[in-house]
Amino acid sequence: MIAQTPQPPYYAVIFTALRTGINEGYEAAADLMVRLAAEQPGFLGVEHARDGLGITVSYWADEASIAAWKAQADHQLAQADGREKWYATFAIRVAKVERAYGFTSSP
Amino acid sequence: MIAQTPQPPYYAVIFTALRTGINEGYEAAADLMVRLAAEQPGFLGVEHARDGLGITVSYWADEASIAAWKAQADHQLAQADGREKWYATFAIRVAKVERAYGFTSSP
Repeated sequence: MIAQTPQPPYYAVIFTALRTGINEGYEAAADLMVRLAAEQPGFLGVEHARDGLGITVSYWADEASIAAWKAQADHQLAQADGREKWYATFAIRVAKVERAYGFTSSP
Repeated sequence: MIAQTPQPPYYAVIFTALRTGINEGYEAAADLMVRLAAEQPGFLGVEHARDGLGITVSYWADEASIAAWKAQADHQLAQADGREKWYATFAIRVAKVERAYGFTSSP
């Protein structure tokens, strides 16, 4: 669902990926990574969608919390598996959210 | 597919949305918006995925090109239709991409 993030500034990590055909271990690892990320200091939320292209946007308080999550041990193992097995290609963009707004329709 | 963007810095507009059940005019407008956005000065690329949650990330050279696209006439009409018909709720986050990296598996 749409992440409930605080007022900017904060950070977004935009992970865009095309999968290989290899699914071994993927779903369990993806679920675990979402759970572990949510326990990290500075984690603000995550949004995900996939139809062919997969897009995961995670939100973080600052660059330090992004660096700590990148270095987290289980995440390091998943990153290695991702390159070896699950992803044909991916792009990661780290961006500072400067402004944000939203809309919810009247009932 | 994954957008081929230049070296940072550049901007990302992260549009995250949940649709209503109303599809009238949506697909045609969405296709037109992608075509028109691509003609705008400063447009760098776009990525989209949806499964329940829809995520569209568009990339732009600078804040001025984002502002010009937001004010573009056909886009203004689509924004009004989006609030009236197509979207139950959405969030828009404007973020400055500070660093980026990628991976492509060996054949």
